[in-house]
Amino acid sequence: MQALSERAQTLKAEVEAFMAEHVYPAESVYAQQLEDAANRWAPPPIIEALKKKARAAGLWNLFLPDSEHGANLSNFDYAHLCEIMGRSTIAPVVFNCSAPDTGNMEVLARYGSDAQKDRWLKPLLAGEIKSCFSMTEPDVASSDATNIATEIRRGGDDYVINGRKWWSSGAMATNCKIAIVMGKSDPSAERHKQQSMILVPLDTPGVTIERALHVFGYDHAPKGHAEISFDNVRVPAENLILGEGRGFEIAQGRLGPGRIHHCMRTIGIAERALEAMCDRVEARESFGRKLSEFDSIRKQIATSRIEIDQARLMTLKAAQMMDEVGNKEARQEIAMIKVIAPEMALRVIDRAIQAHGAMGVCQDTFLADAWANVRTLRLADGPDEVHLDSIAKLELRKQAARRG
Amino acid sequence: MQALSERAQTLKAEVEAFMAEHVYPAESVYAQQLEDAANRWAPPPIIEALKKKARAAGLWNLFLPDSEHGANLSNFDYAHLCEIMGRSTIAPVVFNCSAPDTGNMEVLARYGSDAQKDRWLKPLLAGEIKSCFSMTEPDVASSDATNIATEIRRGGDDYVINGRKWWSSGAMATNCKIAIVMGKSDPSAERHKQQSMILVPLDTPGVTIERALHVFGYDHAPKGHAEISFDNVRVPAENLILGEGRGFEIAQGRLGPGRIHHCMRTIGIAERALEAMCDRVEARESFGRKLSEFDSIRKQIATSRIEIDQARLMTLKAAQMMDEVGNKEARQEIAMIKVIAPEMALRVIDRAIQAHGAMGVCQDTFLADAWANVRTLRLADGPDEVHLDSIAKLELRKQAARRG
Amino acid sequence: MQALSERAQTLKAEVEAFMAEHVYPAESVYAQQLEDAANRWAPPPIIEALKKKARAAGLWNLFLPDSEHGANLSNFDYAHLCEIMGRSTIAPVVFNCSAPDTGNMEVLARYGSDAQKDRWLKPLLAGEIKSCFSMTEPDVASSDATNIATEIRRGGDDYVINGRKWWSSGAMATNCKIAIVMGKSDPSAERHKQQSMILVPLDTPGVTIERALHVFGYDHAPKGHAEISFDNVRVPAENLILGEGRGFEIAQGRLGPGRIHHCMRTIGIAERALEAMCDRVEARESFGRKLSEFDSIRKQIATSRIEIDQARLMTLKAAQMMDEVGNKEARQEIAMIKVIAPEMALRVIDRAIQAHGAMGVCQDTFLADAWANVRTLRLADGPDEVHLDSIAKLELRKQAARRG
Amino acid sequence: MQALSERAQTLKAEVEAFMAEHVYPAESVYAQQLEDAANRWAPPPIIEALKKKARAAGLWNLFLPDSEHGANLSNFDYAHLCEIMGRSTIAPVVFNCSAPDTGNMEVLARYGSDAQKDRWLKPLLAGEIKSCFSMTEPDVASSDATNIATEIRRGGDDYVINGRKWWSSGAMATNCKIAIVMGKSDPSAERHKQQSMILVPLDTPGVTIERALHVFGYDHAPKGHAEISFDNVRVPAENLILGEGRGFEIAQGRLGPGRIHHCMRTIGIAERALEAMCDRVEARESFGRKLSEFDSIRKQIATSRIEIDQARLMTLKAAQMMDEVGNKEARQEIAMIKVIAPEMALRVIDRAIQAHGAMGVCQDTFLADAWANVRTLRLADGPDEVHLDSIAKLELRKQAARRG
Repeated sequence: MQALSERAQTLKAEVEAFMAEHVYPAESVYAQQLEDAANRWAPPPIIEALKKKARAAGLWNLFLPDSEHGANLSNFDYAHLCEIMGRSTIAPVVFNCSAPDTGNMEVLARYGSDAQKDRWLKPLLAGEIKSCFSMTEPDVASSDATNIATEIRRGGDDYVINGRKWWSSGAMATNCKIAIVMGKSDPSAERHKQQSMILVPLDTPGVTIERALHVFGYDHAPKGHAEISFDNVRVPAENLILGEGRGFEIAQGRLGPGRIHHCMRTIGIAERALEAMCDRVEARESFGRKLSEFDSIRKQIATSRIEIDQARLMTLKAAQMMDEVGNKEARQEIAMIKVIAPEMALRVIDRAIQAHGAMGVCQDTFLADAWANVRTLRLADGPDEVHLDSIAKLELRKQAARRG
Repeated sequence: MQALSERAQTLKAEVEAFMAEHVYPAESVYAQQLEDAANRWAPPPIIEALKKKARAAGLWNLFLPDSEHGANLSNFDYAHLCEIMGRSTIAPVVFNCSAPDTGNMEVLARYGSDAQKDRWLKPLLAGEIKSCFSMTEPDVASSDATNIATEIRRGGDDYVINGRKWWSSGAMATNCKIAIVMGKSDPSAERHKQQSMILVPLDTPGVTIERALHVFGYDHAPKGHAEISFDNVRVPAENLILGEGRGFEIAQGRLGPGRIHHCMRTIGIAERALEAMCDRVEARESFGRKLSEFDSIRKQIATSRIEIDQARLMTLKAAQMMDEVGNKEARQEIAMIKVIAPEMALRVIDRAIQAHGAMGVCQDTFLADAWANVRTLRLADGPDEVHLDSIAKLELRKQAARRG
Repeated sequence: MQALSERAQTLKAEVEAFMAEHVYPAESVYAQQLEDAANRWAPPPIIEALKKKARAAGLWNLFLPDSEHGANLSNFDYAHLCEIMGRSTIAPVVFNCSAPDTGNMEVLARYGSDAQKDRWLKPLLAGEIKSCFSMTEPDVASSDATNIATEIRRGGDDYVINGRKWWSSGAMATNCKIAIVMGKSDPSAERHKQQSMILVPLDTPGVTIERALHVFGYDHAPKGHAEISFDNVRVPAENLILGEGRGFEIAQGRLGPGRIHHCMRTIGIAERALEAMCDRVEARESFGRKLSEFDSIRKQIATSRIEIDQARLMTLKAAQMMDEVGNKEARQEIAMIKVIAPEMALRVIDRAIQAHGAMGVCQDTFLADAWANVRTLRLADGPDEVHLDSIAKLELRKQAARRG
Repeated sequence: MQALSERAQTLKAEVEAFMAEHVYPAESVYAQQLEDAANRWAPPPIIEALKKKARAAGLWNLFLPDSEHGANLSNFDYAHLCEIMGRSTIAPVVFNCSAPDTGNMEVLARYGSDAQKDRWLKPLLAGEIKSCFSMTEPDVASSDATNIATEIRRGGDDYVINGRKWWSSGAMATNCKIAIVMGKSDPSAERHKQQSMILVPLDTPGVTIERALHVFGYDHAPKGHAEISFDNVRVPAENLILGEGRGFEIAQGRLGPGRIHHCMRTIGIAERALEAMCDRVEARESFGRKLSEFDSIRKQIATSRIEIDQARLMTLKAAQMMDEVGNKEARQEIAMIKVIAPEMALRVIDRAIQAHGAMGVCQDTFLADAWANVRTLRLADGPDEVHLDSIAKLELRKQAARRG
């Protein structure tokens, strides 16, 4: 492995210290505040307090590359921080590094007009508002983005939006103000030029939050996952990002780094699950022996260590390739980690759950929640099946080139 | 396979028809009533209505063998009904065949005094009240039942109970009135004679429902899983079941049939998940083809069919053995299905979830809920590890006998 | 499970006794005779001696149903005998119940003319000669039998055969005298009417045994697997079986029982591997403990027991269905066991190998040989992939029928 | 990943070119020469010819670090060459980089006396003779090296050796002249000081090659795996390596690099199997489609790519750690790759076999042979179980340190 830059090493140590001092101890407070809240969709006060602390500590917006607004870390360097943040569900938002805001901020920073940046990127970078990304639709297989059917039609100085989106994560939150909506602006255009992206304030008439989608039994408050209908929603034409027909292009640019982030966070939570498992099996006795004295338990620990380390190496390799040869050249590796990391983490967490006995499935540990979260990642941004197929096609192409 | 008795065939057809006509259509009503309820722990009205219908149809208490109170079906016959009921989370209670009431009613029918039967078995059989089984404790590895630490001490004409239980399923319900509590009556007795079981009405002073335990975010209302503290709880000595030191013996007798029931219900839900998957992949298109035209999807369907059929055969074999040679002779087979059925169902349901895309993890199908339910079965009544070890020890013993 | 018939119970006990007394002790003699043989393709004397004994004991040709020549056992009954014979590589031939002779004899008994029966079935039933089945070809995917390209063309009173076959098992043996060859008699006919089957004595001019194919280093002497070329081979027209264009039909009829046999033999060898594993782990110590005291080893034993029992139940169910509703109705079940049994046995044997350490991969146990044998069964008569696809298609069809 | 050194890049290109020009084309010649040989244990002439070419090309003894005799490459650099050589069974010996000679030469270079180096290291480096390593014994679990029971007793100016070894790989070869034998010189010493290593010329009286052990059906001629008895074998005292009681220490030093080599060779053969699979599925049609058009086949290709890349990254990380922090600090990583690489390769090769149909199990491809070879690696130098246990113990220790 290449070495971590000195700056990233320092930041990593700072993030770890911040996690230990502020974030882990806040988890139970957070859960309690959420349970006691009059409105589950308002951010618990502890989060806002922690955000202030993180910002004051300079641990803020670390994700943004190539930009005057962020830390300008390489993907490789940032990946290491991402892993640490991923260890706690509440951490990414504390550091203003949580999805989908990170992706949305990147889109605005890279493709937004000055007015768009001023109006939306600024408050997002300040952590004053939250955003959502409305792409997936209930009625079509959204893993094939050309299926997206929501209409974005020009109407005078406006665009008029009609359609139904779901899994707009974060949109349930009271402080979520803006959606980036993907939709079809020209059904007659060439296949990859039909889609556009447009900024839609959530308080625009015609926007209705229909309901919150659950993940297993979790509502994921205060962020939530919304089903949203858009009924003749009118926004000014200048809300369009980059230009008509550029939606697919923006989506592609948005995905690479996002996947690295997701994977490293997933590795972080898997690592924490392994820690929890080791703690448990040393502390618990059954049939007169510590659980850690059963060699079948030890076998599971060894396998988990192996799987985590392999996934981390692969993800870091993908990050390094993105830095060195670009997202396009790294696309087989990015697809690979998209499949590997969640599958690995599900296995590791499941073993930790099993070692915890019935405690493992309930609210007394982070494990069940983490499992459910990670399970969605085998579907989000395309199911495993789609990525495996891409990997194979790239492989067959390389092998054909070898044969000449 | 031996043939299903004619009576069981008739009952099976009737249960299937009842499910189709009354139960499946009630699932969404049930969910809505629960969501709208002032008190999530009160049974939704639709359940009480369906119970009346089932009772009127003679589909009531079908589980009880060897008793004037039940249907007197063999384990083999009843297993087939259990599978059908297992297809819907709300079905078992509708037919008054839901755990832990079934096990508790068996205990009372087999071991209860006349007074105990009159006071508790009667209303349970009538479906007027519900019960819970308080065995597992947070502080000890309860898979080794000799660890159970709750005290049941004689004090005058009473027993005095002190301890903390959790995963007392059903105890959150407003109509749950009675607990069968397992605890140590004589710590100095021989290892398997230390435990007793005693009837504790939930309104006895000193009994506190501390909280509801969740399962992957689900609270499983209206039944719930309770953590209960017993603080100097006094009940009359005649509440003891069977006699001091008989707790372990009762627990053993309770487990065999319960496991068959759990396994067959699990097979039922797996079968329904496979149906849902088949329906989905025929209805959904991606990249221009029906999902069912992808051979990797078909491979998963084939594998699911194989796994379900194997688990069913094994469970029916165990049931048949219990009928023919008794629980003790069948204990390797019972341990085998205890491991097989949940593992199989988790795989089958997970594939169905994946085929449903993001819809699969939310409340729009029964799949996520079913998965979480089944996941607990790899821990309830002893984790897989304990049962695998028993299977192996029995196997090694048999093989040693072969070697002579 | 239905009960084994009394006659089959008696036969089973007799076969078991014969195995214990004669077959197992002969295995090492057989290996030595083979190693010392001037010609590895001649049957070792011990085999001929055992055949005589088995015939004298009435344990001969037990496989043939519906025939004056065989034992007329049901598939269900015979399956139990097959499992016992499968425990030793040398056993099936001793009882004159080895593939491909069994299938070939069935074909002759069911579809052969009187002359064909007299000339070939008689000596096969007497165990005087052996036969091979020449279907698979090196140049086409033979799992799709319509691909078979060998020509069987009418030429005067003869048929003229041209083509190349491989994996003609048994054809290397000096006492293999006759091949049933499948080939295309009419390429212009309807897809399933193009193939015919014809009897070709191996000493016919133009028949050349090109070479012996190995299986993971084993030459499988004295039977072997031959690659055979047919170069203008002329046989009398009456050698055609059943009629022109009936090849596909014969092949279908031949497969069902054959698969039951293969699966049950596979289960037999897996059962023996589990026995060997149990013996080994009780006898061997490592790091101061018997291997059987490592719970991870015990877990493997439990899993093997589970997998074997499930596969056996499934195979017996398929056999019972064949008896009760016929091969066609049972085709999903037959396809299922075709996939299950070899996969299961490979896992069980592999665990036994691992428990034996380096001894497990060499000639000192039957394990490595058994593994290699079973590995071929994931390919023979169609690879797993083809059968999984059939299972899925049948499943989707049933589910569509359910939806109505 | 750190970058490959320039020198290693050049060497890698040269080895690749040599493989393409000389080694791959020689594989079938080699097989034919072996088949036609009067003595299967004499090296086929093509090997001696290729050795000359490789030496002339400067691609010779590339493995030796820290020595005037070798290429002085880091473990990280050499690992890359090892992968390429591993692609062909015949390659390592061609480059004089084959086990167990590499390990033996390292032992001599590092611990040998000048006389020992002169007498044995010199001809080994020149490729004039071969050597074997006699450690494993049939009667004890040799994965626990303290069990080794062969006696090495001082007798006058000699040591007298008595015992039985097996799996002395290479010892069947006519040009194998010397064995490094491990045995107990002082049973009363402290546990890790009981063993010594001694040089025993194979023509010493009392040394008997008892037989060749097979691997699955392969005899692995001309190297072979020998069972050797040592019956009052006398060698001069100066044949002892390093000193009495140092055997365990030497064994430890020998293992680290050897495992990297084995793993990288294993990755090389897996990579070649994936290539073969890709070639096959593009060339073969079934049911009217190229195999590569079946998405379940593509899924296997993707999974193989993922597994190979993960194993390679892990192995290279272990190599880098050995270079940077030493074998001891890297021992968890070394144990991890010891488990990962063979398991991965077995899966990848098995998929390739399956895709080749029956051709995959026979001598027409390198696949079956490769599979059998790799299967031994889950047992050689300690079975997976032992390494998983070490990994877990190291992990639990680290985690305990974290808890403080």
